Amino acid sequence: MDRPIGVIDSGVGGLTVARELMRQLPKEQLIYLGDTVRCPYGPRPKEEVVRFTTEMVTFLMEKQIKMLVIACNTATAFTLDYLREKLTIPVIGVIDPGARAAIKVTETKAIGVIGTEGTIKSQAYPEALKQISAGLNIYDLACPQFVPLVESGHFSSEAAEQVVETSLEPLKRHKELDTLILGCTHYPLLTDWIQKAMGEHVSIISSGEETAREVSAIMSYQKIACDGKRIPDHQFYTTGSPILFEQIANRWMDYPVNTVEQIVIDQT
Amino acid sequence: MDRPIGVIDSGVGGLTVARELMRQLPKEQLIYLGDTVRCPYGPRPKEEVVRFTTEMVTFLMEKQIKMLVIACNTATAFTLDYLREKLTIPVIGVIDPGARAAIKVTETKAIGVIGTEGTIKSQAYPEALKQISAGLNIYDLACPQFVPLVESGHFSSEAAEQVVETSLEPLKRHKELDTLILGCTHYPLLTDWIQKAMGEHVSIISSGEETAREVSAIMSYQKIACDGKRIPDHQFYTTGSPILFEQIANRWMDYPVNTVEQIVIDQT
Repeated sequence: MDRPIGVIDSGVGGLTVARELMRQLPKEQLIYLGDTVRCPYGPRPKEEVVRFTTEMVTFLMEKQIKMLVIACNTATAFTLDYLREKLTIPVIGVIDPGARAAIKVTETKAIGVIGTEGTIKSQAYPEALKQISAGLNIYDLACPQFVPLVESGHFSSEAAEQVVETSLEPLKRHKELDTLILGCTHYPLLTDWIQKAMGEHVSIISSGEETAREVSAIMSYQKIACDGKRIPDHQFYTTGSPILFEQIANRWMDYPVNTVEQIVIDQT
Repeated sequence: MDRPIGVIDSGVGGLTVARELMRQLPKEQLIYLGDTVRCPYGPRPKEEVVRFTTEMVTFLMEKQIKMLVIACNTATAFTLDYLREKLTIPVIGVIDPGARAAIKVTETKAIGVIGTEGTIKSQAYPEALKQISAGLNIYDLACPQFVPLVESGHFSSEAAEQVVETSLEPLKRHKELDTLILGCTHYPLLTDWIQKAMGEHVSIISSGEETAREVSAIMSYQKIACDGKRIPDHQFYTTGSPILFEQIANRWMDYPVNTVEQIVIDQT
């Protein structure tokens, strides 16, 4: 099936998911939409996140997507069930794949989760983890400074290292913790600092990589994978500055991103 | 949903998948059926593998399973599409999950696949890999001695090390190979020898571990996961010797396997 896969995020964070989708599913075409102008979603109330996400989905549905990937943890926490009910195409979020990967990897059964305030308050990760497995010790922590850091483009700086180090202090107290879920798709851009702060013994789970595999599994199960007759021509849209989006995208992606289009979302 | 997950294999190899299902999905109940008396499936013609597998599935369908896991690569290669058409419950094989995991892991894009003669001749892995990705170099190799070695229970012996070492010689010539798919669920019982023979730089992909995650993903997607109100009481059946089955199962599984029931399969 030659229709594209739609990917939405509150900003550039979902590019970590898109990058993995391109790497693991090189035949599939993507349409990416980042809501940079209203980013971050993390501190917003649920109603607002639902409304913003629905507006983004309406834009992508008009592009005839065959599958929707909610590449934003906050939006997944607040809208996954609702969108699965509402849409006829498969909808994949980033929370379950991250939870499953953590359960596979942990040996001590002590799992850390970091995310935005919205994601952490929603308790979506502890719920997903407990629904699948039992006897887990889960330590979660909101890191509200991380998304603005990434969206500003300063994620490689020494200042970023300091912010990460200080933010993760409370988690480092739990010595038995051997697995940390990056419960926000912006956070993989800070992986080096996060790994350094937590120590080499902690496995870092990037929901992006995990989600790409589940997208592949569900497409194969639903028989909607692309037949691969042409080279995909990915499209990128943002509600914010296309220049900043392009700069971050080209530092992060292996695919040259040079035609980012700015759009105005229809307010419902 | 409290109905069990059915798992079939030509013998004890599928226990490597069952073990991972128990570890990653501790709330789900399993019914395992190993066709030990007719093992190995690897050298048999397709028609025979289809007939044997269908007979096993009929037995499990009477047990009201909610999902079928074909924990045998040969049976997956020959019957997955057919069973997906025929059954109304979800059917998961071990080939796609293994292929997806290898694509995620490889950096050199040079992937090895070892399996039974049937699996290797079917070209199911190269096809699955190429359907998902492009530009891969795939080196496959039939290892017909491995399954009898495992079913005999002598998989930890020095003789086993020697057999593995010699069998894998042809693959070791491909220096760029960085990922090896164990394309047979019996082979994880030989992992230590396989890793030693191939070298530490080669990532070994066990289809069992990978399949367990896809089972979890499809169950969540289909909303048929167990609600976890009771402790699962797994059932094990074999068409061969229950004593040998029990011995191997208890060396391999974390779950005590002490009530293996021998059954006679209705020949269709």
